[in-house]
Order: sequence, then C-alpha cells, then structure tokens
Amino acid sequence: MARFEVLILGNSSALSAYGRHPSGQVINIHEQCLLIDCGEGTQDRLSQYQIKAHRIDHIFISHLHGDHYFGLPGLITSLNLTGRKNPLFIYSPKGLKELIQMILELAGSALNYEISWIEINTSTSIILLDDPIKQVHAFPLYHRIETYGFLVNDKPGQRIFRSELFVDRMPSFETIRKLKEGNDVLLENGRILSVEDSTHPPKNQRRYAYCSDTAFAPDIIPLIYDSDLIYHEATYSESHHEKAKENFHSTAGQAAEIALKANVKKLILGHFSSRYKVLDTLLEEARSIFPNTELTVEGNWYQV
Amino acid sequence: MARFEVLILGNSSALSAYGRHPSGQVINIHEQCLLIDCGEGTQDRLSQYQIKAHRIDHIFISHLHGDHYFGLPGLITSLNLTGRKNPLFIYSPKGLKELIQMILELAGSALNYEISWIEINTSTSIILLDDPIKQVHAFPLYHRIETYGFLVNDKPGQRIFRSELFVDRMPSFETIRKLKEGNDVLLENGRILSVEDSTHPPKNQRRYAYCSDTAFAPDIIPLIYDSDLIYHEATYSESHHEKAKENFHSTAGQAAEIALKANVKKLILGHFSSRYKVLDTLLEEARSIFPNTELTVEGNWYQV
Repeated sequence: MARFEVLILGNSSALSAYGRHPSGQVINIHEQCLLIDCGEGTQDRLSQYQIKAHRIDHIFISHLHGDHYFGLPGLITSLNLTGRKNPLFIYSPKGLKELIQMILELAGSALNYEISWIEINTSTSIILLDDPIKQVHAFPLYHRIETYGFLVNDKPGQRIFRSELFVDRMPSFETIRKLKEGNDVLLENGRILSVEDSTHPPKNQRRYAYCSDTAFAPDIIPLIYDSDLIYHEATYSESHHEKAKENFHSTAGQAAEIALKANVKKLILGHFSSRYKVLDTLLEEARSIFPNTELTVEGNWYQV
Repeated sequence: MARFEVLILGNSSALSAYGRHPSGQVINIHEQCLLIDCGEGTQDRLSQYQIKAHRIDHIFISHLHGDHYFGLPGLITSLNLTGRKNPLFIYSPKGLKELIQMILELAGSALNYEISWIEINTSTSIILLDDPIKQVHAFPLYHRIETYGFLVNDKPGQRIFRSELFVDRMPSFETIRKLKEGNDVLLENGRILSVEDSTHPPKNQRRYAYCSDTAFAPDIIPLIYDSDLIYHEATYSESHHEKAKENFHSTAGQAAEIALKANVKKLILGHFSSRYKVLDTLLEEARSIFPNTELTVEGNWYQV
C-alpha cells in the first residue's frame, strides 16, 4: 500500500523542554511531503531526520502563535539560499503573508521562487487542496485566536469493477478502465453503463486529522469521524483541568474523549506542557477512555 | 580580575551546517549578560549552555538578515511565558520594533514586561550603553544592508591613588575614596585636590569588538584599535575572494588583515559558509597574516 505516515518534528507546547520542541509535522502521502506547523528550529529537525526541505510543496499553519510558525521565516529563506525554483504553497490565517513580506523587505531580498498564499478564514470544514493523490481540509478549532485543524486523506485510486454483474458478457477493457476511473460509459447499443451501478467505490481511503491547539471541541467530532489516525493536543493532565480551560487547551482525557466519540482507529498525543517531565499520567488518563492512544515521540513516524 | 568573556552560540553563516548554527553570542561582563545577535534556535542554545535567559537585559542586533535575528521573536515570547518582569533593552536597526509588534498583535498577546527599543542609525561610532560597569559602542560595517559592529569595554573600577605624593600628610580615607571614584575634593583649608594630579587613570580596561557581516572594511580599524579580542566574520576562504566581495562578506585573510592593522591582541573567526566542512584552510590563511587567531567553536568561552 502506498505510504501515508506522519513524522513528529515537535511535540512540545510553547516552551521547549526535556528535549521536546515546538510544533511541526511532516506528512508523507504517497511520497509527497506536506508540512503542518513550523515551530522555531523546524529546518534543523528536518535536516536531523533527513527530510529534504525541497520535497515540501505545501505548508499548513494552524494559527499564529509563535510556537507554530517561528521556524517559517528561516525555512523560507533557506529554501531560497539553496536554490528553490518551484512554487511553495502556504495555507494560514490572515496576517502571515504580510509578516513574511515585511521580513523580506527588511532583509532587502526577494525570493527566487514564488509563494502562493492561501488565507484560511472559515467557520466550517473546507477543502484547501484537492489533487489526484490527496485532499486537505481545514476545520475551525476553539483557541484564544483563530485556529484551524487539518484533515488529510489520500485518494486510493480506482473504483472496483463489479465483474459478478457481467458474467454473461464482459464489457471491453476500455469500458472497464473508464468505469474504474469513475466515468459513465455510453455503449454502442445506446445504453449507458452507470459507474454507480457497475462499480464499488474505491476502498481504503485513509484519513489523518491534525487537531492543533484547542479547548475541548466536540463540534469537530463529525468532521474527523472514522479517521484512521488523529493527533490531538494534550497540553495538560486532568489535574490542570482549570488551567486547560482558561488557556483554551485540552487535557489528555479530553483528547481521548474526542477520539472515542469520533470513532477513530488510533489517537496520538502532543503539545505537552513544559511543566511535565514525565508524561505517564497523560497517557494513562487518555488510555482509560480510549485505549489505542500513544504519546508522540519526536523523530517517530506514525502510520495512517 | 572580574569576568569578561564571550560565549559563542552560533558560528555559521545563513545556513546551518556541520553542527554550526546561525549567529549569536553571550557576553559575560562582570557577571552581567549581554546578547549579541540572535539567530534561529538561540533560546535552545542558551538552555544547552546553561545560560539563564532572564539574566540578559540588553540585546544587540547587528542587522536584519534572518540568520542574525530569527531567534528573537521566540526568545521574547519565552521570556514572557516564564514570568519576566524586568524591562528588556533591544538595540537594532530600524524595522525590528514594528516587526515584533506585528508578531505580538497576530498572536493576540501583550507582554508582561516592557521592551525599550533603541534604534541604531549612525555613520560613525556611537555609544549605545554606558553604565558604571560597561560601555557598548556601535559602528557601521559594509554589508548589503545597514549593519553595525559592536565594541564592548568594561570599566575597570577606581582610579589609582598616587600615595607617593602624600608621604608627609596622607589625606583622609573619605578624601581618597572620592579621588579614586574620580572626584576633585575641596579640602578644609580651601585648597582643591585635583583628581587628575593625585590619581592615575584606572588600569586594565578591556575591549571586545564584534565585527558582524561585512566586506573588507579598513575604516573600522581606528574604531577597534588596540582591542583585547575581536570577533570578525570570515565567511569565505581566499579561494572565494570574488564571492566574498559580491556578497559583502570577508575572507579569513581579510579578517586577519583587520586584526593586524588594528593591533589587537587576539582574533576569533566565525560566520563560516556552509560550503566548508573543514575550516583548516581559513585558519591557516588568517594565521599567516595574524598568528594569534582561533576559529570559534560553539559552546566555548573566549576571554577578553
């Protein structure tokens, strides 16, 4: 099966601590790389984990707190210095484009590649990116400032031809190809062979949801329902429930409740507060609600 | 003797390479800490070398290329999150203040401590900071954009009382104290005891010059003359002389020529291009002109 996996570059909240760094993830989806969030030092960690930054064509920034984007100016500059020519697509809330423009102006430099900025501004789930391999959706979260989660799904290829319906007379190879690609086919006898009737939908679409900084947000459950893997922030343990609420963050237990109600296959946790040296309590809290939970480890790949 | 030394946080040019990071230095001057330049990841390296960021009250940014300040937004934010109350003084060319304000606005956050911004804009050497312990001067360099070097000197304390002049009748302890602190003293008999006549100037003033990104700039020689230690950028070796000129950088040989002509005691080199894995050639080039040269090593302290 084509590769679809997530590399954790940073699983810390705003302050780095105990070897944990600010937010950043690489998604390898069928050998194409996406970057989600880009905390300070992201380019160093890409290099540490041997991800060529030039493979990244799309960068998604969940919100404009520094621990989610302070590595972006450096990454943009380094891509320029190392000869990037291909356009880069950046998806973020409004404001980042002007900030980067100001940084380039102060440096007296222009980029040798184009950045296409897509500003996100939505109160519902929307499709940001849709190509033959993948879709990326943004959906709103509940944080102190405008913040989005991202749902990434692959497109598993062709529809499945229902050969059992055609035992008497098989259509031509060409007709089957068109059907598998999702097209109705006009036969020579004037009949239309409907794609809905003669094929099953493609199987094995995989879905990964990145739930960035957010207070407990049950509204997202239908948007990420049945996902194969979700990352959910778990800044605090239940013992700091009030602090979580006050700062628009989640506890590990709340992350697990979202995973359970959204019927996902697996939950991975991150964005841990620097107050916790050891994270066992957070894991136990989450597993008591949703057993298939893991704490993310920086440098590890997680299969979708 | 009171401590006066420089910790190298980063000795790479724009691209990190071979474990070398973008520019940053801590100066410990009589147990007070200054930060000069603040490349991406500076806060992590402060922590790695066990420098408490809260000890830093003054930050000097040489110019607005990212490898000299992209770590500043994160440092400012982290100081806030960890409870800083004391004001922070930041000295930089124009533009950085507005940039940081924009970053704070986008994050929807205000700082709990005050930043005093001092914008540098000079074509001669000027004093930026002058207190009982130290002076910091800025002087212009020759780079693609407005760039400054910094000269830091300590104030070695009191003047030296010339007791040999007073063998017959020593002044009172109080009078000697005032003289040593640099004051003329009105005696009871109406005579004035002049500080110039009765003391020698303080000995052992030490001077450190930070020569940031610059093309070969002999104009700075009188400004840093007789310094105890200078850091000078040496982005290139002589074999890339043309590239140095084109990019407004120096070769190791040019750095050494500055050190020689400025009659300094010791030269340390940094801001190495990522094209060099091994730096032996740069060191040899410099030493052939100015023997007391060292390549900086990140994490090392250099005595002024």
